[in-house]
Amino acid sequence: MTRADAQDLDARDPLAPLRDEFILEEGLIYLDGNSLGPLQKGVSERVAQAIAQEWGRDLISSWSKNGWFDLPRRIGEKIAPLVGAGPGQVVVADGTSINIFKVLAAALGMQPGRTRILSEPGNFPTDLYMVQGMTELLGSENCELVLAEEDGIAEAIDDTTALVILTQVNFRSGRVHDMAAITQAAHEKGALVCWDLCHSTGALPVDLDGCGADFAVGCGYKYLNGGPGAPAYIYVAERHQKSVIQPLSGWHGHAAPFDFDTEYRPADTVNRYLCGTQPVLSMLALEQSLEIWSRVDMADVRKKSVALCEMFIALVEARCADMGFALVSPRASDQRGSQVAFAHEAGYAIMQALIAARVVGDFRAPDVMRFGFTPLYTRYVDVWDAVDRLVTVLESKAYENADFQLRAAIT
Amino acid sequence: MTRADAQDLDARDPLAPLRDEFILEEGLIYLDGNSLGPLQKGVSERVAQAIAQEWGRDLISSWSKNGWFDLPRRIGEKIAPLVGAGPGQVVVADGTSINIFKVLAAALGMQPGRTRILSEPGNFPTDLYMVQGMTELLGSENCELVLAEEDGIAEAIDDTTALVILTQVNFRSGRVHDMAAITQAAHEKGALVCWDLCHSTGALPVDLDGCGADFAVGCGYKYLNGGPGAPAYIYVAERHQKSVIQPLSGWHGHAAPFDFDTEYRPADTVNRYLCGTQPVLSMLALEQSLEIWSRVDMADVRKKSVALCEMFIALVEARCADMGFALVSPRASDQRGSQVAFAHEAGYAIMQALIAARVVGDFRAPDVMRFGFTPLYTRYVDVWDAVDRLVTVLESKAYENADFQLRAAIT
Repeated sequence: MTRADAQDLDARDPLAPLRDEFILEEGLIYLDGNSLGPLQKGVSERVAQAIAQEWGRDLISSWSKNGWFDLPRRIGEKIAPLVGAGPGQVVVADGTSINIFKVLAAALGMQPGRTRILSEPGNFPTDLYMVQGMTELLGSENCELVLAEEDGIAEAIDDTTALVILTQVNFRSGRVHDMAAITQAAHEKGALVCWDLCHSTGALPVDLDGCGADFAVGCGYKYLNGGPGAPAYIYVAERHQKSVIQPLSGWHGHAAPFDFDTEYRPADTVNRYLCGTQPVLSMLALEQSLEIWSRVDMADVRKKSVALCEMFIALVEARCADMGFALVSPRASDQRGSQVAFAHEAGYAIMQALIAARVVGDFRAPDVMRFGFTPLYTRYVDVWDAVDRLVTVLESKAYENADFQLRAAIT
Repeated sequence: MTRADAQDLDARDPLAPLRDEFILEEGLIYLDGNSLGPLQKGVSERVAQAIAQEWGRDLISSWSKNGWFDLPRRIGEKIAPLVGAGPGQVVVADGTSINIFKVLAAALGMQPGRTRILSEPGNFPTDLYMVQGMTELLGSENCELVLAEEDGIAEAIDDTTALVILTQVNFRSGRVHDMAAITQAAHEKGALVCWDLCHSTGALPVDLDGCGADFAVGCGYKYLNGGPGAPAYIYVAERHQKSVIQPLSGWHGHAAPFDFDTEYRPADTVNRYLCGTQPVLSMLALEQSLEIWSRVDMADVRKKSVALCEMFIALVEARCADMGFALVSPRASDQRGSQVAFAHEAGYAIMQALIAARVVGDFRAPDVMRFGFTPLYTRYVDVWDAVDRLVTVLESKAYENADFQLRAAIT
């Protein structure tokens, strides 16, 4: 494979024109869209218009006139097709951690006698922390976190399991859980499932309805490119919407919020999963950022994602052989999301040197270098160039510079 | 009193120059800043810069380089002086309802054997709904909402009371609770207090530390002018920070979030009250909007607020006598926040006609017309003109137009 081969692939890529919609500096190879998606053209303008016109001129009337009150549902319906959800099952509100809390309460409330929440030790920590918080609140006799290794999840489900909560694509390794199989295994044991889709939505096809999933959550700021800290979404299968406890019962979840009743009466719809007023500016940035997905076929996205990841693995293993890299991600593409992780004992310093060379990935303790491959704006030639710069960093020993050894609070 | 008298008052008003910092259309009299504060100059530019530079160019590095990770604490310290809080006790995160949930869990956890949450039926509904949600989660034997009429709160506190939660300034009537007296009464009975300051902060001086308050919450989008749905804040007195349960235990509340530990280990500081990633664009709009307060003396704000409200009451009662208005707000200024409410049986239609005449207040069921008086940008002449237009609406019977009778979903 040569750089010209990569250019050929770009020339034949049906998604190639979409890169023009992203604002990316010349020479920058951004392989961290799995952490914070980049800015798209039109988003700054949309937010500026919302500030000047909707907030600045229309003021309070915007809640109805400009549809602010409907934003959680309206944006939810734009995310729904990306996760295989029929209408009326997704709302955008709060953050992923808060939405997990809503799911935990619902699952425990729906499953009297079942007190265990099953996950895996490699799950993103906040998912586990939210269960631990629920345990602190309810007592360990009412909520208990149980961890099973990633290959043993299905076997660990039993008649004490209220909920299986898993991040479908592991944040470190990129390993993909089989959503259909684990959901089925849980249902066979009478348990419910919540899928954390932070590293899935916009990265690979997801079919929540098709898998019979119960709940899902995910963030807006990774592959959805919704902006820093963009609000999160929550999916509640229609069959569960009326039967669940939702203890974060703020006024936006009320059946008639503007009646200002003293008694909480939950909405009969997915609106029950709303709590308080949402941050409108961040909501609108997310909404505008989602526009591109209506023109994208997720099958094309997945195909290119697999090709980019395979090319990266092959090039690193060919050109950096015997340089201390070990593939952390699954080698089989059908078991891998849209990122590739390599372990290296000098991984932190190498990543800092690589960032200085304008290839931005990130690092996760203890030794994992993460590279996200986002087909809407990442070119095949970017993959080639990224590895080329990695080779330069390694050969020049640039990473041995003391500045690159220093661990910052956030990388 | 004449219009010229009002102009004289404006000429002598030390706060008058601040109006230039707000973007308000010529001819608009905006008396709804107690619902959504207007836009200030510089906010649009700050958000545009954050989008183009911090998100668009610096991308993921902004979490450290541009201080995104510190925003909850940094903005919290800017709100702290407005609520009489010393450093290290206020964070900005999530919404008011979510923050109330954190307080409820803390108060119940700190007070074993006390299960009652005391409030009043006229509190803003979401405050009551959050208690009802906690009851649904914990069971009524562990959390029970008790309501007492607004004049009987202190007497209703007993040794079963875990927490008194009150909105200091009533959202309908503008009535002010005596924060020091109720806090003291609660402490004498061994109960804790949470003050909802949504209608207080930026409206009148607040002294949480001075009153010995335990907890407080409030929103960023009313008198703080932080933008639609701006994130909320939570105050936790330093003495309580290490002793409380905080079940919304997301990774931003961890003592070392980037260690990615499997076990939650709460921060020893007010950071424990953080949960997930915050909506950065909305956070930055709030931060920029708060800049003005560093140049404002709250004593001046309160003095002008009282004068504006008294003038409005006097003018309405003089010029609209025998037209069906009844003052809902306390007549004594020391018992009233920065808003005035009048009941009128045609209140909804009159408010719609008044809005059409470019005087924006709002309506709260069943018959309350609310007018917010925000000293940073409301002039004495605005009060005079607002009443003048109200008289015109009433005399012309414009409000009998069918369009003004129709109740919209949100007013």
